[in-house]
Amino acid sequence: MFTLPAYHAPDFTSPELAHAPEVKWERVTLPGVAPEGYHSTSMYPEYFKIDGQWVLPRESRMDASVVIGEDGVLRVVENRNLKGGDKVILGRTENGQEGIYLHTRGFEAPDARPDDQFVFRQGRSRETSYARDYDRLFELLRYEKEHGNILWVMGPAFSFDADARRAMQCMVENGYVDGLMAGNALATHDLEGSMFHTALGQDIYTQHSCPNGHYHHLDVINRVRRSGSIPRFIQDYHIQDGIIYSCVKHGVPLVLTGSIRDDGPLPEVIGDAYQGQTAMRGLVKKATTVICLATMLHTIATGNMTPSYRVMEDGTVRPVFLYTVDADEFVVNKLLDRGSLSATTIVTNVQDFIMLVVKGLGLM
Amino acid sequence: MFTLPAYHAPDFTSPELAHAPEVKWERVTLPGVAPEGYHSTSMYPEYFKIDGQWVLPRESRMDASVVIGEDGVLRVVENRNLKGGDKVILGRTENGQEGIYLHTRGFEAPDARPDDQFVFRQGRSRETSYARDYDRLFELLRYEKEHGNILWVMGPAFSFDADARRAMQCMVENGYVDGLMAGNALATHDLEGSMFHTALGQDIYTQHSCPNGHYHHLDVINRVRRSGSIPRFIQDYHIQDGIIYSCVKHGVPLVLTGSIRDDGPLPEVIGDAYQGQTAMRGLVKKATTVICLATMLHTIATGNMTPSYRVMEDGTVRPVFLYTVDADEFVVNKLLDRGSLSATTIVTNVQDFIMLVVKGLGLM
Amino acid sequence: MFTLPAYHAPDFTSPELAHAPEVKWERVTLPGVAPEGYHSTSMYPEYFKIDGQWVLPRESRMDASVVIGEDGVLRVVENRNLKGGDKVILGRTENGQEGIYLHTRGFEAPDARPDDQFVFRQGRSRETSYARDYDRLFELLRYEKEHGNILWVMGPAFSFDADARRAMQCMVENGYVDGLMAGNALATHDLEGSMFHTALGQDIYTQHSCPNGHYHHLDVINRVRRSGSIPRFIQDYHIQDGIIYSCVKHGVPLVLTGSIRDDGPLPEVIGDAYQGQTAMRGLVKKATTVICLATMLHTIATGNMTPSYRVMEDGTVRPVFLYTVDADEFVVNKLLDRGSLSATTIVTNVQDFIMLVVKGLGLM
Amino acid sequence: MFTLPAYHAPDFTSPELAHAPEVKWERVTLPGVAPEGYHSTSMYPEYFKIDGQWVLPRESRMDASVVIGEDGVLRVVENRNLKGGDKVILGRTENGQEGIYLHTRGFEAPDARPDDQFVFRQGRSRETSYARDYDRLFELLRYEKEHGNILWVMGPAFSFDADARRAMQCMVENGYVDGLMAGNALATHDLEGSMFHTALGQDIYTQHSCPNGHYHHLDVINRVRRSGSIPRFIQDYHIQDGIIYSCVKHGVPLVLTGSIRDDGPLPEVIGDAYQGQTAMRGLVKKATTVICLATMLHTIATGNMTPSYRVMEDGTVRPVFLYTVDADEFVVNKLLDRGSLSATTIVTNVQDFIMLVVKGLGLM
Repeated sequence: MFTLPAYHAPDFTSPELAHAPEVKWERVTLPGVAPEGYHSTSMYPEYFKIDGQWVLPRESRMDASVVIGEDGVLRVVENRNLKGGDKVILGRTENGQEGIYLHTRGFEAPDARPDDQFVFRQGRSRETSYARDYDRLFELLRYEKEHGNILWVMGPAFSFDADARRAMQCMVENGYVDGLMAGNALATHDLEGSMFHTALGQDIYTQHSCPNGHYHHLDVINRVRRSGSIPRFIQDYHIQDGIIYSCVKHGVPLVLTGSIRDDGPLPEVIGDAYQGQTAMRGLVKKATTVICLATMLHTIATGNMTPSYRVMEDGTVRPVFLYTVDADEFVVNKLLDRGSLSATTIVTNVQDFIMLVVKGLGLM
Repeated sequence: MFTLPAYHAPDFTSPELAHAPEVKWERVTLPGVAPEGYHSTSMYPEYFKIDGQWVLPRESRMDASVVIGEDGVLRVVENRNLKGGDKVILGRTENGQEGIYLHTRGFEAPDARPDDQFVFRQGRSRETSYARDYDRLFELLRYEKEHGNILWVMGPAFSFDADARRAMQCMVENGYVDGLMAGNALATHDLEGSMFHTALGQDIYTQHSCPNGHYHHLDVINRVRRSGSIPRFIQDYHIQDGIIYSCVKHGVPLVLTGSIRDDGPLPEVIGDAYQGQTAMRGLVKKATTVICLATMLHTIATGNMTPSYRVMEDGTVRPVFLYTVDADEFVVNKLLDRGSLSATTIVTNVQDFIMLVVKGLGLM
Repeated sequence: MFTLPAYHAPDFTSPELAHAPEVKWERVTLPGVAPEGYHSTSMYPEYFKIDGQWVLPRESRMDASVVIGEDGVLRVVENRNLKGGDKVILGRTENGQEGIYLHTRGFEAPDARPDDQFVFRQGRSRETSYARDYDRLFELLRYEKEHGNILWVMGPAFSFDADARRAMQCMVENGYVDGLMAGNALATHDLEGSMFHTALGQDIYTQHSCPNGHYHHLDVINRVRRSGSIPRFIQDYHIQDGIIYSCVKHGVPLVLTGSIRDDGPLPEVIGDAYQGQTAMRGLVKKATTVICLATMLHTIATGNMTPSYRVMEDGTVRPVFLYTVDADEFVVNKLLDRGSLSATTIVTNVQDFIMLVVKGLGLM
Repeated sequence: MFTLPAYHAPDFTSPELAHAPEVKWERVTLPGVAPEGYHSTSMYPEYFKIDGQWVLPRESRMDASVVIGEDGVLRVVENRNLKGGDKVILGRTENGQEGIYLHTRGFEAPDARPDDQFVFRQGRSRETSYARDYDRLFELLRYEKEHGNILWVMGPAFSFDADARRAMQCMVENGYVDGLMAGNALATHDLEGSMFHTALGQDIYTQHSCPNGHYHHLDVINRVRRSGSIPRFIQDYHIQDGIIYSCVKHGVPLVLTGSIRDDGPLPEVIGDAYQGQTAMRGLVKKATTVICLATMLHTIATGNMTPSYRVMEDGTVRPVFLYTVDADEFVVNKLLDRGSLSATTIVTNVQDFIMLVVKGLGLM
């Protein structure tokens, strides 16, 4: 059975923390610009010494500034979202000497074997053994269905395959999907599957290319735009299957964001990348497990805004699990390069991945 | 010596074209939505029969509608940019029977060997012979420097390598760059190179990682934002080398667009994907050769908005050449899948590609 | 339910076949060297006109010569295996004009849609829909278990993952494996898994690296060599699980061949590449379905020696099915480049592939 | 200017080495099988305490046993090549406690920055900066031409491109090639280029596929076999260009080895993998720089038999430099996985690599 790893707070009685100074800060003078020397966050828990207390921000992310609220609460804010007058923490050390302490091993078991950590820092390839990763994931998903929040991030490839699309719909229907983030393409291809049983004009089961099939793609977009929204389109055209359909039906929140190669867009798509990030972070803040499938830029975006921990309502700290699945070693290892060491990466075709997940959960 | 392939217009006296009907059209009722049955363009020359004449739009692109202007001029407009009342051409055949004729072989020599065409439709790999492609590219670039407009589309990898960055600067200085399209990342990494000689904190020549080097990246963005613009930043911080620096210095137009995984953005970056596309198409309309380097989404975006031909001021029709260079077969072949058959694709590391180009042109 | 596609022999009454000349031939003068102008086979059925009859060789392969036996039987022989005095068929046309007829569409249904064929000639990628391919494979394997002969060709990656190894063992135990071809590495890694539960010193389930674990690999080889054979090693060291173990236990024929990067070798490994090919062809001649997993050179080798058809004992002609599964598009598309058009290729991690197969067959 | 890094022997006066015991050994009882507990070598210098002296084998390789000769000389012998009665060193520690000392940092400058070493242990990708690696390689090649021995290991892709083939010929003619190791395919494709200006029937410059072009490949093999040897074939058919041609003309030793997917083979090809390794090691023992291009199995084979050092005639110890160039990260990082930390890996298309090398050396 799955148990959450316990969180061990730093030992604040150790000399270097007990005698650490207060953090320094400076006010923002130009909106969207941090003062020189600002401290930038990582994905790990970081503590800041304020009024003699070591304070942990509730909702962190990588590469952002820490703003001390008038109420003393710490907010982790992207530099572009800083407001004039915000009190931004300064300092670029992480061992306490400037009142900042980075705590990378809070979730490690006291008896962890040294190479446990190492294993997950290695590059992974198509030749890595993933047997245990799958078993853990099945346990985790069952746990999170009851106690957590599972957020999916999906690339367009997903909707090219009838089985993968059906499997994902099954995950939604069985309560394993608490949020979905994707681009215009995934939603468009999936709705094309609902309306024409094709993706980019090719049958998603038989692989046959339909005559003039590329109009399927364009017509779906045009019709959703005519309907004015995806839910209205689903109603207008009696859509009855698919990933997007099932999310709408079950009230799963969707964040769709635009990319430079999109056509359309569908009405719900957020065209502005930075507004899109804000909407995504809205879902990420609730998530306890995040699964990214075959989408490089969305995966990096999500990895950057997903901290390795979450402070729950009752103040306890738990890990946030991040999975990345892609057929390309380059993509999954890019996440490692970015420092997202807590991620579990699997190199495979996401179609097969999702089939193994629904079967592993006993759903299909 | 390089000579442009001549354009051969269709034979409008052939029975199926001579007796073809006028195109049908319908007015837009809902802005941003095409009427059902709209005709969608390809990248090839397409002729539309209007008032007894076969008319070729001057500025086409893939997957857009054709609007008949009040002046009779044909504009190729993305569906999202359609305005209420626009007269949109209808029809989904391309052989004349609905007044629409697609002309795919306008630039083929009359004596073309049948497999000439075939060769360029094959998938390409790291094992394809590129010797002739390089020779042709060198000739083409020399020609275009005098007579055309060369547009570059660049992924972030470019600025990780000191040589590649220097080579690209050299191309700008020697007049081989008439426009540059990229994302926030390319510009940021390149300016980090200018300021710190690093990219993401790693020396772009020695590969040494600087202590706390990730702040280089964040600080560059923050400082450009403080300066308020890239040109002002260049001035404020006495920047003296790099791709962006040389473009600014030589007045090369830049279009920088945002993506979902960006931090920043730099002030010039267009955050909205669809406004970004409009700005990009502004440069593409002037281009006669487009070279896309190691950037999948930008390459697809550019491929979709780049027609295979351009109508010059004097009414003559010439080809637009599209090159895609990427280390990943998957990326270059994706362009083939999208139907961009006129593209030349090369599978290699773009660092080496640009070094061979500057050397092939005798610049370094 | 699965049904074999029927074979339609060519129409020998058509004028070009009815009036075709006899084949020409010439005797081999230098052993291992074909006469100039020799005809080279493809993987398709080819008929040769001899004594007024159109004769189909029973056991063909690609890129080999056709020898007319003294008994009139046609043997397809690699040039290196030609003997002095062999009567080798000459001719390089395939439409009958030299008495040679290539029959590429013998298994096509008369009502085949033209794009049916096309679909399978396209390059395939991680984004291709494989849903139908899996369904067909499950049906095919059930059919072949009863009526055919299933030959597996496996790369070393297979034995790195506890689940994949267990799944393959399960396939053997359930009668879905009639032969196995692999290299020294697959066998060595698998036996290391049997003896130490590691592969190259890393636990095949937990991924933990054992201290001094690389000796596991070397010691397994050394011990099998001491035992003198794999079956004796299994006995000497009480091996009780694994792919090789189950093949030995169930009498599944193994062909292990060497490669230039091997250590060892294990005693059963055939070090000479050309003797190895002969042994492999021995298994291929019996096979009706061949499945190649994550092994580029073995896959090409097997593809070259696997014809698209087999003449059964009773003289009927049936197709031979060839599957290639690899995480790398480059590998699967290489098979297409080689002309092996009848192959079904799937781009995925073979670990997941085999798990889906055992689950699809209801075995795990 | 290039200078060889100096070698610093271990400090044998340190207590753990000064008081280390003699090595233990045991005699081989079964030829080709090491005694249990045998010590296996790495690619680094390793010292063995014998008769009170620390002895360094002159010619090492990875994963082999160390045999104490009757003359006291240490030979590093693959287990399969052990003879009955050989005295094999035992022990699996490397810090002196069993008389075995592994010296990994002999070539490090005393003032090496700690991350110098780290840099070269990182995975490398298409986004790594290779500017300094190229500069160093140019210097190294110039140095080795005068003072060392440069061994090239080449995959078949090389001969598909007219430029790459010409560049390699140029390297041979200018004295930068002291040995060449490849498979049957490289030699066959290259000789097809010499005879027909094609590779696998496709023109190596224009990319046009010749009608019936696959016979080019088969005919070249058949004709070389008729001639009886490559040099004789060159004479018989008046071959005048290419990689193999220039090696033969300039007396560069070739080792060609077979692989399971070969056709042919050419007469010089060594079909047996283990005899092939012996022949390869014969060239490797002389080499001071080894460059592996686009050939995974040959690269691993070569990496395993190439030590990081060489003892020169005069007893001085110098490094052996190993380069691996491949378009696929998976391949170059596989070498890292194997422990070959001293290798320099470059991710690019080898065609472009060799063009940059000839240009960097001022040869073309």
